[in-house]
Amino acid sequence: MSRQMARPGGRSARVQASVHAAVRELESEVGRDALTVPMVAQRAGVTPSTIYRRWGDLQELMSDVAVEHLRPDTAPKDIGDLTSDLTAWAEQFLDEMASPAGRAYIRDALLGDPDGSNAGRCSAYAAEQIDVILTRAAERGEDAPDTETVIDHVVAPLMYRILFRPDGLDASYAHWLVATAVTPLIGRTDGS
Amino acid sequence: MSRQMARPGGRSARVQASVHAAVRELESEVGRDALTVPMVAQRAGVTPSTIYRRWGDLQELMSDVAVEHLRPDTAPKDIGDLTSDLTAWAEQFLDEMASPAGRAYIRDALLGDPDGSNAGRCSAYAAEQIDVILTRAAERGEDAPDTETVIDHVVAPLMYRILFRPDGLDASYAHWLVATAVTPLIGRTDGS
Repeated sequence: MSRQMARPGGRSARVQASVHAAVRELESEVGRDALTVPMVAQRAGVTPSTIYRRWGDLQELMSDVAVEHLRPDTAPKDIGDLTSDLTAWAEQFLDEMASPAGRAYIRDALLGDPDGSNAGRCSAYAAEQIDVILTRAAERGEDAPDTETVIDHVVAPLMYRILFRPDGLDASYAHWLVATAVTPLIGRTDGS
Repeated sequence: MSRQMARPGGRSARVQASVHAAVRELESEVGRDALTVPMVAQRAGVTPSTIYRRWGDLQELMSDVAVEHLRPDTAPKDIGDLTSDLTAWAEQFLDEMASPAGRAYIRDALLGDPDGSNAGRCSAYAAEQIDVILTRAAERGEDAPDTETVIDHVVAPLMYRILFRPDGLDASYAHWLVATAVTPLIGRTDGS
């Protein structure tokens, strides 16, 4: 009861953190398919109705947790040139998203997402990382494609194949996509 | 009972057709979210266990039905040149997939699909249509990209944006993707 005066944002953030932590713990203890809202509520120390009120249902909660899992926790590596930086990023993106855990999170993120906002957050994370890489390239004086072009020609083919056509996906494919997105500009810079 | 001697494939095909028809009817009568396996079974004239045995659960059944909805029912238009044919196809693909019904079917197709085979069927439908367009172009003597290139640079960006980043999607974006995929080849054909 001493918490009654806490800001709503504070309580809201605490509820979110404890519910997300409960989902992650229970996922590893009993498996994703055995989760229920009452089970998560009990572990998180909240009532089931708190969860239903905030997330709607288990699917929407799982979508929210999945997006958190998909959030990059570090800035992209700075290797020193655009092609190397984008290639390293694309290779890591493919590794993470095409892993069994990554695929499960993408599916969860898309599934419990009636208004599309969670899918939009996933895409925004990728766009932010690419922005960092392209801004560095511009600061070095390198000619660079814009973020939307990298999304169309690197991120989209990787994600499409992860979801629809996973056979034969490997790092060399990621390298090739980056080369295709960057090479026309390199050609132009060289005066061709 | 007079049907007892029918080939298993025949009975299997009839069960599939009646269950799919029951889903489609009930979707329009009561809405997708109100569907249950017993309701579908009753309408289709089969037992619920027939459905569980064949499809696993409602989500897998909905995925199967969704893929059928996404199957193209006509060959792509033959306008007379590669760019026009691909542009018309991409525009129609975007129209269908980005519609509320199309999005719902894509989500259903992806989600009730533990082994990825339904997503693979969706992608194969697109690849088959593109094959038809590229084969026609080759027969006319036009230089054409290969199917995988069109998937990477036309289909993948369309589908990625439908799923993750739908704002501002329109026909002009589809036109631009096709132009980007086809133009380097046209340049080459011109001897540049």
